[in-house]
Amino acid sequence: MQSRSSIEKALAAAMAAIDEGRGPPKLAAALRHAVFPGGARIRPQLCLAVADACGDDAPALSMAAAAAVELLHCASLVHDDLPCFDDAPTRRGRASVHRAFGERLAVLAGDGLIVLAFQTLGQGAAVAPQRLAPLLATLARGVGAPDGITAGQAWECESQVDLREYQRAKTGALFAAATMAGAQAAGAGAEAWRALGEWLGEAYQVADDIRDAGADPRWIGKPVGRDRALGRPSVAVEQGLSGAVQHFDRLVAGAVAAIPPCPGAGALRALVRHESERLVPLAWSSELLPSLARVAA
Amino acid sequence: MQSRSSIEKALAAAMAAIDEGRGPPKLAAALRHAVFPGGARIRPQLCLAVADACGDDAPALSMAAAAAVELLHCASLVHDDLPCFDDAPTRRGRASVHRAFGERLAVLAGDGLIVLAFQTLGQGAAVAPQRLAPLLATLARGVGAPDGITAGQAWECESQVDLREYQRAKTGALFAAATMAGAQAAGAGAEAWRALGEWLGEAYQVADDIRDAGADPRWIGKPVGRDRALGRPSVAVEQGLSGAVQHFDRLVAGAVAAIPPCPGAGALRALVRHESERLVPLAWSSELLPSLARVAA
Repeated sequence: MQSRSSIEKALAAAMAAIDEGRGPPKLAAALRHAVFPGGARIRPQLCLAVADACGDDAPALSMAAAAAVELLHCASLVHDDLPCFDDAPTRRGRASVHRAFGERLAVLAGDGLIVLAFQTLGQGAAVAPQRLAPLLATLARGVGAPDGITAGQAWECESQVDLREYQRAKTGALFAAATMAGAQAAGAGAEAWRALGEWLGEAYQVADDIRDAGADPRWIGKPVGRDRALGRPSVAVEQGLSGAVQHFDRLVAGAVAAIPPCPGAGALRALVRHESERLVPLAWSSELLPSLARVAA
Repeated sequence: MQSRSSIEKALAAAMAAIDEGRGPPKLAAALRHAVFPGGARIRPQLCLAVADACGDDAPALSMAAAAAVELLHCASLVHDDLPCFDDAPTRRGRASVHRAFGERLAVLAGDGLIVLAFQTLGQGAAVAPQRLAPLLATLARGVGAPDGITAGQAWECESQVDLREYQRAKTGALFAAATMAGAQAAGAGAEAWRALGEWLGEAYQVADDIRDAGADPRWIGKPVGRDRALGRPSVAVEQGLSGAVQHFDRLVAGAVAAIPPCPGAGALRALVRHESERLVPLAWSSELLPSLARVAA
């Protein structure tokens, strides 16, 4: 997808206000720790790829939207890792924010990143002010209640949970926000792009379940086997690794079919297929699954 | 100040999206618990009073800004009360959110309220889209890093803290956001209104310190004596109750003097004096202080 380095630059620019030397130094360090170095930056890349496919006419805004999506994602990771949730000791191959800076600064870093995301979006909208309100609504829906990440995480506190509803909110909602915001930043309608995001979000969640159930922790930079240990809903736990990989392939096909007509539809279809292959290599279905299944057992 | 009932209605309208029957029910209940019944709603009233003084020409937007300010305030209370910060058992006379719903839902409710605040602001801006970006910037500065509430709270994690810097971020910043947003919603410039908010924020923080040090817990709906017990910076602890009350009076005088020329300046000055008297009654200086000092000792 689009150049990783331009996304890193946009995130660095968004974080610059925090690094001006004012404010509490430990919070600034915790915020940096939460954002850099990043993971795959898959959501902002998706946002930019959709903007590009729609003939992006306001690159400053699409980049701001992409950075905002990633900052919201980082915020959710910091709060998900907290002791009262997953109590994850590591993230992206090093200490989670609360392990490195304490629980209080982890709560505040998450809060600060949510605020910074909307602030970044607002700044980017200087080039097209009339697009700000719809973009803001899209991102808020992707992370708030009752449909977004916050709601998804809160399903973990309910005794009755529908797995698809849970995953749609916890993962699909921000993917849908990424595709829709990409379209909106480029002046296109948002609704036609929701389905692509939801398919990809579900596929990504299944890929995460597969990796949690079967991958080497050194490879993914965080502990594995957490879903089973924490009794969390997981397609890989429910359907087994082989069933989960087949499910993943169906979801990717659904995503490709959901790309609406636009100037860059062909290139976007190829991109989605290519990135999906990176997430869950086709080879897994034949070569790796038997050994993965042993690890996960 | 302006009708409390209109603010409650605006907050109820903002919360309506959460109560649509979708989403996890416990999160919806925790969000309602965090917002209703409210405290004094002093920040949204201040926001509306300033908009009014500036000749409010977009009441839907000023009300949305006021509701957003209050939602951000509620979010900060929920997270401040968490076990890793104050571990406050009560708030506004009943169980704090984490005591009523558990720590996980308290973290998520705070997150959800921050998102809802920006969402509400965006919806209100339909009547004047060009005012959205500056309003968003003002609110984000009031709550984010390095200047806003999040930074203020994070100063509690530092070993070296300047008391005024801490209070300006923790309390003054959102008061300043309230006055500035009120002006911006009404189409006026923001900067001229920063000083009023900062003076009032500092005055309010001192009033809070005074009440924490000397008030009856039944009166203020939360435990008292926490600042001293937690070793938190407090003017009442540092200067004694009598000195703190004098300090409060000076700050209110500063606030009144800071009101910039505007159509409703006279009425606003009278309002600030009246509300300040409600916060820390003049009678305290002569009649109540000796007994308060005994309680606080």
